[in-house]
Amino acid sequence: MKQFLDIVDPIHDFIRVHDTELKIIDSPVFQRLRRIRQLSGAHLTYPSAQHSRFEHSLGVMHIAGQAAVSLKEKGFLKTDQIQEIRLAALLHDVGHGPFSHLFEEVLQIKKKTSHEEIGKKIIQESEIGDILSKSGFDKKHITKLAFGYPKYRFVNEIISGSLSADMMDYLQRDGYFTGAEHAKIDHKRIIQSLDVYRTKLALEKSALYSFESMILSRYQMFKAVYFHKTVRSAEVMMLESIRLADDDCGFIDLNLDHYTKLTDEFVIAQILALPNHTSEQRRAKRFATDYQNRRLLKCVYEKIMTQKSGQSEQIRDKIAKKSKINKDDIFVDTSGTFSVPLTPAKEKTKSITLITHSKKPTEIPFSKIPVVSSMAESMNILRVYTLDNNRKKVEMAAKSILG
Amino acid sequence: MKQFLDIVDPIHDFIRVHDTELKIIDSPVFQRLRRIRQLSGAHLTYPSAQHSRFEHSLGVMHIAGQAAVSLKEKGFLKTDQIQEIRLAALLHDVGHGPFSHLFEEVLQIKKKTSHEEIGKKIIQESEIGDILSKSGFDKKHITKLAFGYPKYRFVNEIISGSLSADMMDYLQRDGYFTGAEHAKIDHKRIIQSLDVYRTKLALEKSALYSFESMILSRYQMFKAVYFHKTVRSAEVMMLESIRLADDDCGFIDLNLDHYTKLTDEFVIAQILALPNHTSEQRRAKRFATDYQNRRLLKCVYEKIMTQKSGQSEQIRDKIAKKSKINKDDIFVDTSGTFSVPLTPAKEKTKSITLITHSKKPTEIPFSKIPVVSSMAESMNILRVYTLDNNRKKVEMAAKSILG
Amino acid sequence: MKQFLDIVDPIHDFIRVHDTELKIIDSPVFQRLRRIRQLSGAHLTYPSAQHSRFEHSLGVMHIAGQAAVSLKEKGFLKTDQIQEIRLAALLHDVGHGPFSHLFEEVLQIKKKTSHEEIGKKIIQESEIGDILSKSGFDKKHITKLAFGYPKYRFVNEIISGSLSADMMDYLQRDGYFTGAEHAKIDHKRIIQSLDVYRTKLALEKSALYSFESMILSRYQMFKAVYFHKTVRSAEVMMLESIRLADDDCGFIDLNLDHYTKLTDEFVIAQILALPNHTSEQRRAKRFATDYQNRRLLKCVYEKIMTQKSGQSEQIRDKIAKKSKINKDDIFVDTSGTFSVPLTPAKEKTKSITLITHSKKPTEIPFSKIPVVSSMAESMNILRVYTLDNNRKKVEMAAKSILG
Amino acid sequence: MKQFLDIVDPIHDFIRVHDTELKIIDSPVFQRLRRIRQLSGAHLTYPSAQHSRFEHSLGVMHIAGQAAVSLKEKGFLKTDQIQEIRLAALLHDVGHGPFSHLFEEVLQIKKKTSHEEIGKKIIQESEIGDILSKSGFDKKHITKLAFGYPKYRFVNEIISGSLSADMMDYLQRDGYFTGAEHAKIDHKRIIQSLDVYRTKLALEKSALYSFESMILSRYQMFKAVYFHKTVRSAEVMMLESIRLADDDCGFIDLNLDHYTKLTDEFVIAQILALPNHTSEQRRAKRFATDYQNRRLLKCVYEKIMTQKSGQSEQIRDKIAKKSKINKDDIFVDTSGTFSVPLTPAKEKTKSITLITHSKKPTEIPFSKIPVVSSMAESMNILRVYTLDNNRKKVEMAAKSILG
Repeated sequence: MKQFLDIVDPIHDFIRVHDTELKIIDSPVFQRLRRIRQLSGAHLTYPSAQHSRFEHSLGVMHIAGQAAVSLKEKGFLKTDQIQEIRLAALLHDVGHGPFSHLFEEVLQIKKKTSHEEIGKKIIQESEIGDILSKSGFDKKHITKLAFGYPKYRFVNEIISGSLSADMMDYLQRDGYFTGAEHAKIDHKRIIQSLDVYRTKLALEKSALYSFESMILSRYQMFKAVYFHKTVRSAEVMMLESIRLADDDCGFIDLNLDHYTKLTDEFVIAQILALPNHTSEQRRAKRFATDYQNRRLLKCVYEKIMTQKSGQSEQIRDKIAKKSKINKDDIFVDTSGTFSVPLTPAKEKTKSITLITHSKKPTEIPFSKIPVVSSMAESMNILRVYTLDNNRKKVEMAAKSILG
Repeated sequence: MKQFLDIVDPIHDFIRVHDTELKIIDSPVFQRLRRIRQLSGAHLTYPSAQHSRFEHSLGVMHIAGQAAVSLKEKGFLKTDQIQEIRLAALLHDVGHGPFSHLFEEVLQIKKKTSHEEIGKKIIQESEIGDILSKSGFDKKHITKLAFGYPKYRFVNEIISGSLSADMMDYLQRDGYFTGAEHAKIDHKRIIQSLDVYRTKLALEKSALYSFESMILSRYQMFKAVYFHKTVRSAEVMMLESIRLADDDCGFIDLNLDHYTKLTDEFVIAQILALPNHTSEQRRAKRFATDYQNRRLLKCVYEKIMTQKSGQSEQIRDKIAKKSKINKDDIFVDTSGTFSVPLTPAKEKTKSITLITHSKKPTEIPFSKIPVVSSMAESMNILRVYTLDNNRKKVEMAAKSILG
Repeated sequence: MKQFLDIVDPIHDFIRVHDTELKIIDSPVFQRLRRIRQLSGAHLTYPSAQHSRFEHSLGVMHIAGQAAVSLKEKGFLKTDQIQEIRLAALLHDVGHGPFSHLFEEVLQIKKKTSHEEIGKKIIQESEIGDILSKSGFDKKHITKLAFGYPKYRFVNEIISGSLSADMMDYLQRDGYFTGAEHAKIDHKRIIQSLDVYRTKLALEKSALYSFESMILSRYQMFKAVYFHKTVRSAEVMMLESIRLADDDCGFIDLNLDHYTKLTDEFVIAQILALPNHTSEQRRAKRFATDYQNRRLLKCVYEKIMTQKSGQSEQIRDKIAKKSKINKDDIFVDTSGTFSVPLTPAKEKTKSITLITHSKKPTEIPFSKIPVVSSMAESMNILRVYTLDNNRKKVEMAAKSILG
Repeated sequence: MKQFLDIVDPIHDFIRVHDTELKIIDSPVFQRLRRIRQLSGAHLTYPSAQHSRFEHSLGVMHIAGQAAVSLKEKGFLKTDQIQEIRLAALLHDVGHGPFSHLFEEVLQIKKKTSHEEIGKKIIQESEIGDILSKSGFDKKHITKLAFGYPKYRFVNEIISGSLSADMMDYLQRDGYFTGAEHAKIDHKRIIQSLDVYRTKLALEKSALYSFESMILSRYQMFKAVYFHKTVRSAEVMMLESIRLADDDCGFIDLNLDHYTKLTDEFVIAQILALPNHTSEQRRAKRFATDYQNRRLLKCVYEKIMTQKSGQSEQIRDKIAKKSKINKDDIFVDTSGTFSVPLTPAKEKTKSITLITHSKKPTEIPFSKIPVVSSMAESMNILRVYTLDNNRKKVEMAAKSILG
């Protein structure tokens, strides 16, 4: 009997899924990811970006498996570890809430937690943990591979970080589905060139161009998609709507039975079904309706900065005061990222080690790789949004305060 | 001031949208199409097929506009007609209900109507009609262009039929988003080669290969996607769920205010929110839940036929009797199409007229084009589905009855 | 030390070349293939089709190796055989003369031999045989794998035939470099689905669509490229030029030292350097000059037939007589192929065996696969060419004689 | 009657060629470009890079025409100028000699001239000039458009420079045919975004990402292809072979009848046909033979510099002295380019002007565009090559002298 299933995927042609993987994928907790868009509100700007965390999770498993095979062939991994790494990769986003990183912002503000923490809980406590155990896997170990643990450094880096399956899948997938096409990643070459140096993931020197192109793609995808002015406008609205409705709807409840019911359209339906008693309810409903019908906030000010501003609340107050517009109708959005993704342990990566066959490995600081270093400084954006009818006043106030 | 907007699209790079078009697209009735998947349940088999009628409608407008420009350059259309054809193409699917063609099956059974009829009503009676009128367009005329009218034969054929913008967009788009990749359509060449002969759309002979490839792609997309065994299983379940819930939920209400609220996830949410009082309610909820969690009916019998069977109800009865399984747990699904799409007037096309520069046009019956004729006979499929635990019994009964 | 080299290739990304392979590739006899265009005169119609037998040979080795790995995983081959099959595939075209299949026509008429026979000789007698022997390979065995031997049926079929690496590479490569783009071959899926049934290559049923598409691509490539009216015109001229110059230049000399000097541009240079003494010389030079400057013969008659005509000489005589045009200025070209490539033993293939996991293999005649059967009858073309100034007369004569 | 021909091209699908253009293309002087490889010796490293100046010239005409249409729509050009610009673009490389830029190096050293100067002569004095005049074009004017003239600044820049059709075609074409795939140029977007500011070509700000990607692609193509160590090795050998054979063969003769006979394979055939009388002849023949058979010089030293070294001869002397190897067997190759192409007037470009709809144009120095500025410094390479058997000695000498 056939022990696997080939799932058709536009990015990887076929993704081969094996026994335990299939059981996990077929669980309702995992199927739920089909209803969480990968890019929350980006489809309102890039209409085709309707893809979900589900396909992305399969893709990360696929690439992580290829990376594991490549490192096994070079003697850094054993055969058994390939399956473990694939399972960890499959599960690395299982804790994501509705609207992906958007709900992440809510989780961080309200509960000081993250999708990774919830992911750990899901693997430990849900049916997924049972499937793992029954199939002979150590669910704690899989959790550590998926979400970081000092001992497993390069294995963690296969899943997330500056040479990770996660980035290689999302850049290609988001480029493909948005149509932005900035993402030209030669992931096969990078994977074939992975190496390990002193517990860290390293790269054969001949793949340096591919690494440069990937980092440029990432930079361009941030500018053109993830931090796009209109994309962020939709997300700022939805964030506000969730925040306002939360007292009534109790979204931010970390009980797993509750949490795993939440999906993009479920959250919107819940908000739209609220009564009109309080101003919070009315505003939450208005934002959700406008989000659905694509009547978006207008951006009246934008500034690119070298560091993330920590003062959005103060700025909001000042603009409200100066413009005499209600503070609730002013939104200060700060988006920021590093030129290269953080490590699984959320540390900043500052270098890459390059391997050549004839010479000894060299650790190159990103500051010495022209293309990478050039991006370091311009990935933080501060924006001010408001309603269409307040445009002029808020624009003037923002300019006079922020320069 | 810029009079247009460029919308990024993976199939056509950019779709340029002009003033009146943008107003229509920005109306809630049209935005609703973002929440109606193009391929209803296909994403449960092809996970990336999350694309919606919204992107498709933009794409059909884009190709229809290119076709109109091509025919204008050859003297068959005037400049003004290009804009009218684009608007008609944009609106050709505006009447689609949730789950696209799946709801179409419900509409036909319960109301003897179609998405085209509802589309006409929407253009006449909703805000879209107002936008058209205010912008100086004749909404009746646009309706005739979009949905067929004897006088406008080749214009109708630009929008739907065997050389239509509709087919050229959906084959490419569905191939791209499913990843099935069977759809390699050289639509630019076909469009550049469009011609008109005696009120009908014709084709330059040099584009015949492209036409052949397109018809093969269509055939393969039907076999691999639209009529795929598992795709149809999901759709059979959802159809049953909607049918069972309709008395309670009143989906099939052609009042526009009501109809335009219906979207895929909204319908599922309504069904899941039903009480458990009647067996219809319980079954409707079970099918909807199983659909969401991808616990699908099993296909126990499949037969490819040269004609669509009109006897599915009788077959169902016989199998139930023979297998002693409750009729409600047996599903007979008959899917069929023609090797070439129907005309807008729902007539069968039997030939294509080929134009060469030196000789006079020749009308070639499809039976004389090897690749096209070869597909004519095998596009009807009869399948029997049932629950996993009834598999054996129903399979045996089906085989003994259907051979 | 690295034991392989990765050669960049637009069709396969990278082609990994190992030790013995590299030595063969680096021999002057093999390097010569860089100067033999894959599609002789097609670049005069499709300007980018400048690719050579060299790249194609690497590509066939690459695909044959993948096919061998796939069959090894299914238990039909041993590890050692993979390398042998790769070497045989690398060498399958090493006997090609200048202008590829065009010189083949000369070889067959004048010497009753073929590039395969010369290929055998090259492997046995040239430095390539020495490299094989020194590296521990049996050069006779490799020859049998490359050019056919009853005992090695499915191995031969990996290299040439209806599921072969040869066809999968040339269709993709010729499509890519001509830009004709008819060739959409999913060779990875076909390879992954190869099987063996009773010594013959077979296919998993799930890859049948891919096989259908490939056969349609082949049919379209023949119509659009290989048998294109203008492509054949250039080739008819070059053939005539070589025929006329052969007495002086002695091209058709099967001595290997001589034969392996011949390349496209070398042959043209030799012809252009002839004196103007005889009418043969003058005509040979005129055709070669006109070929280079793209002043081509005109096609005045074309007929698609179900069988290859064996009577071109008689037809030529009749047309000359009727038109009163010198026979030397009239060219009757008959091009023909089968809907599916011949086996390595030059036998016609009439069926394919399909494998499914649950049922037993079924041998399906091509006449029962609609897409394949539909192409069987229309792949023979008879054309009459002449000089521009004789056009009218020859056209009239041809029409009256051939109908 | 049809007034144009569509030429199939893998980069642009179809290139539409009009009347006068077709006459020029069909002239032997232009057909000759089919036999001059676009990338001289790169095919010895990237086997598929067999494409020629012919296809590239068609491609530049195609893109330049699109750019002209885009600027005409914005009011910067008149309809008539589109055809003139297309003709100038078609002819911009007509003066190239065998081995493209490689012969350029010879021309510059021996005759202080360039392919542009010869191109001017060809347009003025050959049949191409006659075709232009007879078709009603001013051949002097076309020459100025093609090769630069102060009055036509932005028109010149359409053809060559940092936003030019030339670069957009060669990056895509060279990427496609090498398979290096670094070249992902969104030329449609750049063209659609072209503008003019104070006689200079400018760009809409929204296309800045596309410009960045293009400049990165160019940088990567230089590193991976144009200045590739092995590619340069082949070219250094061929250069030496031509230099040595020139006294006998008289290649560098600017008489047009002679010059337009020279093509890659013709030059090699001439060299190989030399007698063995002098050491120059023997060395010329050896290098040409080794080039053909891909027995290349070895690179023993490589240094990336911020400025082009002007001292290669002195370095060569020093290394010869120190290593006690004959100076003739040591080759010092310095390759350099700017991060952004020069203007038609061979001036360095230091900035780009960005246009936005709401604000006034801003001139941005490349030093302020991170991706572009980052490449500025590392595009000069000094390399030392020698024969395989001198490797060690020359390597040691080079290291001790150059550090």
